[in-house]
Amino acid sequence: MTADVLIRNARPFGGPVEDLFIRDGRFVAPDRTGPVVEIDAAGHIALPGLVEAHTHLDKTLIGMDWFENRVGPTRNDRILADRNAKRELGISARRQSARQILQTLVYGVLSIRSHVDVDTEIGLANIDGVLETREAMRDLVDVQVVAFPQSGMLPREGTLELMDAALRAGADIVGGIDPATIERDPIRHLDAIFALADRHGKPVDIHLHEPGELGAFCLELIAERTRALSLQGQVMVSHAYCLGMLDVARQSALIDTLAQERIAVMTVGSPSAPALPLRLMRQAGLTVSSGSDGIQGTWDPFGSGDMLERAKYLAQRNGMASDVDLEETVRICTFGGADGIGLGGYGFSKGCFGDLVLVPARTLAEAVALTPLRRTVIRRGRVVVDGGKLAGDLPEIE
Amino acid sequence: MTADVLIRNARPFGGPVEDLFIRDGRFVAPDRTGPVVEIDAAGHIALPGLVEAHTHLDKTLIGMDWFENRVGPTRNDRILADRNAKRELGISARRQSARQILQTLVYGVLSIRSHVDVDTEIGLANIDGVLETREAMRDLVDVQVVAFPQSGMLPREGTLELMDAALRAGADIVGGIDPATIERDPIRHLDAIFALADRHGKPVDIHLHEPGELGAFCLELIAERTRALSLQGQVMVSHAYCLGMLDVARQSALIDTLAQERIAVMTVGSPSAPALPLRLMRQAGLTVSSGSDGIQGTWDPFGSGDMLERAKYLAQRNGMASDVDLEETVRICTFGGADGIGLGGYGFSKGCFGDLVLVPARTLAEAVALTPLRRTVIRRGRVVVDGGKLAGDLPEIE
Repeated sequence: MTADVLIRNARPFGGPVEDLFIRDGRFVAPDRTGPVVEIDAAGHIALPGLVEAHTHLDKTLIGMDWFENRVGPTRNDRILADRNAKRELGISARRQSARQILQTLVYGVLSIRSHVDVDTEIGLANIDGVLETREAMRDLVDVQVVAFPQSGMLPREGTLELMDAALRAGADIVGGIDPATIERDPIRHLDAIFALADRHGKPVDIHLHEPGELGAFCLELIAERTRALSLQGQVMVSHAYCLGMLDVARQSALIDTLAQERIAVMTVGSPSAPALPLRLMRQAGLTVSSGSDGIQGTWDPFGSGDMLERAKYLAQRNGMASDVDLEETVRICTFGGADGIGLGGYGFSKGCFGDLVLVPARTLAEAVALTPLRRTVIRRGRVVVDGGKLAGDLPEIE
Repeated sequence: MTADVLIRNARPFGGPVEDLFIRDGRFVAPDRTGPVVEIDAAGHIALPGLVEAHTHLDKTLIGMDWFENRVGPTRNDRILADRNAKRELGISARRQSARQILQTLVYGVLSIRSHVDVDTEIGLANIDGVLETREAMRDLVDVQVVAFPQSGMLPREGTLELMDAALRAGADIVGGIDPATIERDPIRHLDAIFALADRHGKPVDIHLHEPGELGAFCLELIAERTRALSLQGQVMVSHAYCLGMLDVARQSALIDTLAQERIAVMTVGSPSAPALPLRLMRQAGLTVSSGSDGIQGTWDPFGSGDMLERAKYLAQRNGMASDVDLEETVRICTFGGADGIGLGGYGFSKGCFGDLVLVPARTLAEAVALTPLRRTVIRRGRVVVDGGKLAGDLPEIE
């Protein structure tokens, strides 16, 4: 039997000071029947675990030689460079995913949805690598694996079968990619990935960079298939730039369609991509999640993986400065993420998992604006990061 | 006589390893005639001092109580909230400017151009406060003071006279503000501030948020007056959002006009404001500088003041990811800033001031992407920041 954990003087989601009690890895009402470990939160803000709803654990170059980026500006240039790098740099998906997970654990990221490449060149190697890391890291972080056809599915024969194999091997989610601009056949692409999802009983997550009305058309196709297969609450659209490229009336209509089918949207708040209408989306009851996308890879060298910094990106991209708006961005990077990727037992309610991140800040807005780094991270009642440093036993990384 | 300083194993601007020699506060050819202090740069990149070309030292709330931002979204809402805050929060320009200067010194910011409010309510109090701090901090950092009519000049009678008084009291530069949308009379506003500049023999720096063709018109008016008064190389336009809101042909024509009169442009790369055509601007030979704008103030709570992080903002806003592009953003935050605000003796050439920032990074692109914080900062040959911590004697701040 492990000791109960009493966290004194924490401020859940920036509210008043409270004590939090964890038994057997879950929040419960405090009592005193056994040994108790006490932790003084010193009035810091307690966030539930930060949620990374969209990254590419198999693509990061953290800890490797410097990659000189001479890649051209188009998405195809980048996909090609990415595929070359996998071959030439010998990126180990197992090792690199472990490095990124430990780096972001320090910030308090306790749940990760990662797209993982499946293609006819590497086959399932990256899926296998990330699944190994997931197993090795299971006491530190939850990882969801999306079988992702980065190099295209329809244009590369055999990819669909590999995705099917990936889902049988343990991948959790069916990934899709721009059905028009990359796949060149939106109907066939979407029909194929929704059929996979239906057959495996697994959710869908689609990279959708398609612009303007082309993107809007694809969103409608996605909604139609979600309804037809009763996949409400099981579909996420990642990026959805088109929502930031249309007039307000069209935006609203699309947002309503997405809300009706409970399709979640993931946005990284990229400074150089269209800004999504966050306020409209949340007002319509849409689930909005966020993520870091690739961290320190061949696409670009940026990214810490800190989802509190990501809240800052969301705010800054949208010109948000008020305390209320900044709180909303924290919600997107916590509860919004949890809803979007379908986490159970998330939050501070009794019965939820005893996960939290203590952030030294006076208000949620300050936490977003200054992203203080000396955080303490507790998972299932166990301190895994203490004042910004990894604590306790860690799995070895080669 | 102070000892000479020999910095071994530095990589100026990311180039090959070199030794740098400083005598009497300036880089000179190495020799061995007197006592020498040796510093091992351990192969770190050496940047010349980072240049903050646009901030508001009198507006930061660093170290004060948390300001709950409930300010409306328009520029006028923010100007009003700003003026109320000055009155109600008792912001001491002297103390707050000192706090910001020390905070950004840690990053390696050694030269600062600060706009400082002049208005009919506070008069010259903020100018006096920042000038006091400048004197107290003169061994650490260079500060230029712009007499800035934040609350409007033409609409508030007496402001022009106060600006005149500020310039006599020691302000270095004549500030201007949106000649149309705030001042409501572009000709009269610009004529007045250029006349001030002419009379005092001082440069001009104009906040120009005016959108699209309205902004373009104001840029033309500024260029006409620059030419008429032979103020080439003495005028900076800050923000210049209009350059990011026009088609390429119009952009190019305006950029040529600015280049002809050697008018510099300052952009902060704000994620929510129009992205300026950085590449076009630099190709045309335009001087491009950057700055943090307000740090942790009533306008918004963001901002560290780190000009290397600012290079990252510039890159990300413009979708730049290649090493060459990232190097360009470092250039904007160093040499571009120095050109724009007219610093003499800047850089690593013999005879230049012995100022540098050692950054632990493999390449300039990595320095931008990861903005490492354990920097060492040397000013006039003296270590003022050692591995990310202030070093040596510091002036007291109340």
